[in-house]
Amino acid sequence: MAAPAMAAMNSVSLLRGPLSLRALHFIRISNPVPRNPLFRAPFHFRRVSSSVSAISDEEAAARAAAVNADSGAPTIFDKIISKEIPSTIVYEDEAVLAFRDISPQAPVHVLVIPKLRDGLTELGKAEKRHEEILGRLLYAAKIVAEKEGIIDGFRVVVNSGPSACQSVYHLHLHVLGGRQMKWPPG
Amino acid sequence: MAAPAMAAMNSVSLLRGPLSLRALHFIRISNPVPRNPLFRAPFHFRRVSSSVSAISDEEAAARAAAVNADSGAPTIFDKIISKEIPSTIVYEDEAVLAFRDISPQAPVHVLVIPKLRDGLTELGKAEKRHEEILGRLLYAAKIVAEKEGIIDGFRVVVNSGPSACQSVYHLHLHVLGGRQMKWPPG
Repeated sequence: MAAPAMAAMNSVSLLRGPLSLRALHFIRISNPVPRNPLFRAPFHFRRVSSSVSAISDEEAAARAAAVNADSGAPTIFDKIISKEIPSTIVYEDEAVLAFRDISPQAPVHVLVIPKLRDGLTELGKAEKRHEEILGRLLYAAKIVAEKEGIIDGFRVVVNSGPSACQSVYHLHLHVLGGRQMKWPPG
Repeated sequence: MAAPAMAAMNSVSLLRGPLSLRALHFIRISNPVPRNPLFRAPFHFRRVSSSVSAISDEEAAARAAAVNADSGAPTIFDKIISKEIPSTIVYEDEAVLAFRDISPQAPVHVLVIPKLRDGLTELGKAEKRHEEILGRLLYAAKIVAEKEGIIDGFRVVVNSGPSACQSVYHLHLHVLGGRQMKWPPG
């Protein structure tokens, strides 16, 4: 694994424990890891069990992430916002950052986040005062779709809480497109 | 079928042709139709083919709906907003209406729409001036989750265009919860 990626992992592990390894799938590193769903599991786990599906891993990771949901602790996104951890930025303005999910679920898969979390660990924590940033985020999703050439067909998804598979407690919108999306939506 | 449902269908058919029958799955009628995916297909089709899956039907319906996406024609939602067609309203304020999807994909499945479409046939048509209503809609999704007892875990989905399975060209947010949601989101 490339040194920058390992350095990122080390710094991230200080924040969130074992799960932080998985959180790295949100960023693009200089020497990309193969798109193997097991990349999201801790390394020792990858070696002893190759039968774990990406889906159950995703749900388990979401449950683990939820443990510290209300701690207000920094997340991997803080380092992405500060550019301490590199990402492939698709759109940015003073309030919003949009970057590629490194574990894409469609040919286009971008995350849109507020630069200032301001209590928005999840959509379920939104207050009336957040309406402005929520509007900016949803509009930014449209800008992303335009920039990515999927304006004629894209899906926006917001997961709030473990049963929705939220895995990073900094509000984020998923923008997906470039293929026929199915129904139900997960 | 109950008379009110038939009356609703007749009025809807004036708006959107055969596909409008399918659009009825968004509303709850006084004598609920069994939750059979084939309900969404035209009646003659239901009789000759019982092997069509709900998924492909959903995609086909979305493609058909897209034909008139830019016509600015009224949709089934106009009649729901005017209460001409009954729905089970979960939340309402001066700008937003939230009501149950009659073809729920989870124990809780509510649609959140702007009362005034104002050009928002789909998220892909959003303009900067729409940020305010977009913020209100996303915040309303949180209010709905709270009211429905799923604030600890819910997913919000916005489909824009046929490849995302959008089937009514009046912007709407899906709020889903009450079960473990899967990944990828469709």
